[in-house]
Amino acid sequence: MDEFSLIDDIVDSLDEVARASWIAVASGDDATVVSVSPGAEVVSSIDTFTPDVHFPSNAFPSQIGYRSFMAAASDLAAMAALPRYALVALSLPELDREFALGLCAGMAKAAAKCDMAICGGNLTKGPLSITVSVHGEATAGTSVVRSGAQVGDLVQVSGDLGAAAACVRTGSYAVAGPLQRAYFEPYARVDLRGIVAGAHAAIDISDGCLQDLGHILKASHLGAAIDGALIPVAEGAELQDALWGGDDYELLVTAPAGLAGFRVIGEVTVELPLCLDGEEITPQGYDHFRA
Amino acid sequence: MDEFSLIDDIVDSLDEVARASWIAVASGDDATVVSVSPGAEVVSSIDTFTPDVHFPSNAFPSQIGYRSFMAAASDLAAMAALPRYALVALSLPELDREFALGLCAGMAKAAAKCDMAICGGNLTKGPLSITVSVHGEATAGTSVVRSGAQVGDLVQVSGDLGAAAACVRTGSYAVAGPLQRAYFEPYARVDLRGIVAGAHAAIDISDGCLQDLGHILKASHLGAAIDGALIPVAEGAELQDALWGGDDYELLVTAPAGLAGFRVIGEVTVELPLCLDGEEITPQGYDHFRA
Repeated sequence: MDEFSLIDDIVDSLDEVARASWIAVASGDDATVVSVSPGAEVVSSIDTFTPDVHFPSNAFPSQIGYRSFMAAASDLAAMAALPRYALVALSLPELDREFALGLCAGMAKAAAKCDMAICGGNLTKGPLSITVSVHGEATAGTSVVRSGAQVGDLVQVSGDLGAAAACVRTGSYAVAGPLQRAYFEPYARVDLRGIVAGAHAAIDISDGCLQDLGHILKASHLGAAIDGALIPVAEGAELQDALWGGDDYELLVTAPAGLAGFRVIGEVTVELPLCLDGEEITPQGYDHFRA
Repeated sequence: MDEFSLIDDIVDSLDEVARASWIAVASGDDATVVSVSPGAEVVSSIDTFTPDVHFPSNAFPSQIGYRSFMAAASDLAAMAALPRYALVALSLPELDREFALGLCAGMAKAAAKCDMAICGGNLTKGPLSITVSVHGEATAGTSVVRSGAQVGDLVQVSGDLGAAAACVRTGSYAVAGPLQRAYFEPYARVDLRGIVAGAHAAIDISDGCLQDLGHILKASHLGAAIDGALIPVAEGAELQDALWGGDDYELLVTAPAGLAGFRVIGEVTVELPLCLDGEEITPQGYDHFRA
């Protein structure tokens, strides 16, 4: 088997995920061609995933693929974009067909859940890494950005936090339980698009709740007061997991009123950068390069 | 310095390349937002570059960045798309600011030459790899694909071939000469967009002239007869470099008549898969996984 036949196999394995009504030219050419509705904007993001940084190296390939795709798609959810398509660049140490197809099966499952097509990609030799470039549509000017928070906005999160971080903290990747499902099978909250559209600012919680809130506050030049007792801590997780852990891929938004499906954890303020239960704190979440 | 401040430094270093009139939301949010003209299609491609596969590991970072960006952008040229923007995912073994900024300086220079914005990206820890996701626009239905070749079309290339391959063959990366410039400073032929738009089929020569022609023939279910004496061999290169080497990033097109700026090297046929000087050959160019 050579590189090109593995690419053919990969595209075949994607089946219906390789096609969509908005894909004018799918995989197999120099580039894919995507139709965009008149007046629409394209919303784009890219993420790379590497072993022992973003997933345990002994995870099943389908778990790695599923999680990687969802983590990338989550950025579209955070912008309230309509998910459309993804390109995937795989580096593999060797032409391991079973591994590659397992990875793609996981990605295809995740893509189908987000109603996205995987319509292009690249395969090369190198240390294992998976890069997913995701693209969505938005009506011009309606994307929800980080810099839109306003004083008095309620800080809100879309679900329980900390389960994935508890899985990482306990190193219990191989157990079949809810913490592991949270880690390996996150769901990019593309289902909340219509609701997130009503927020002033939004971000997905990938680096940790307070760290990601810090990104909104920095971009909006504001502070926030968070009430630790209001944090929805996932079963099996601790408050610290929920505050500082990442990987749940729930959304954090600020909006003038409580949004359906979200739980309020605090308020945007003009004063200090970020306070948790009245104490000033410095956002510190996941930094890939920290020892 | 942490990851986020390096990202800030990288975005700063991109300067004007980080912005463009068609970028509605630039770097610094969960995703970038790109305005698309009504009736337009988005053309997208992704490529990964790793040391000792796509570039010598001791090359200057700016050389690596320039070459990687151009190699990715070349796929837009091959579709006759209007180049617009790119997202870049970097994996770095450590937070090496000088290396990262050198890489980005090379990419910014290449992006500016292609009139493209670099408006988003990702930075993570891992073995060195550079993934570039490139995006362009096309009027709906006008992209030039690989499958459009027709019997009787003239097979044409956009420039001299083989110089970059000769650099690879001789291992003379460190010399300052034309072969090395061809290798490290290719130019994605986005300048030929208006001309390529008149072709039936197009591809960029990344894997080797005959190999890439093979991709067009496979997609179009046709054959071709190539005249070795018509191949424009670059100075310092040999015919084998021009036929089988890649990395020049010139374009190969098929069209019913000779196109301005292109040189005819053969003709599309209905018969045998691919003939060079009357002898049937099997396309074989660069396979990343071949020993």
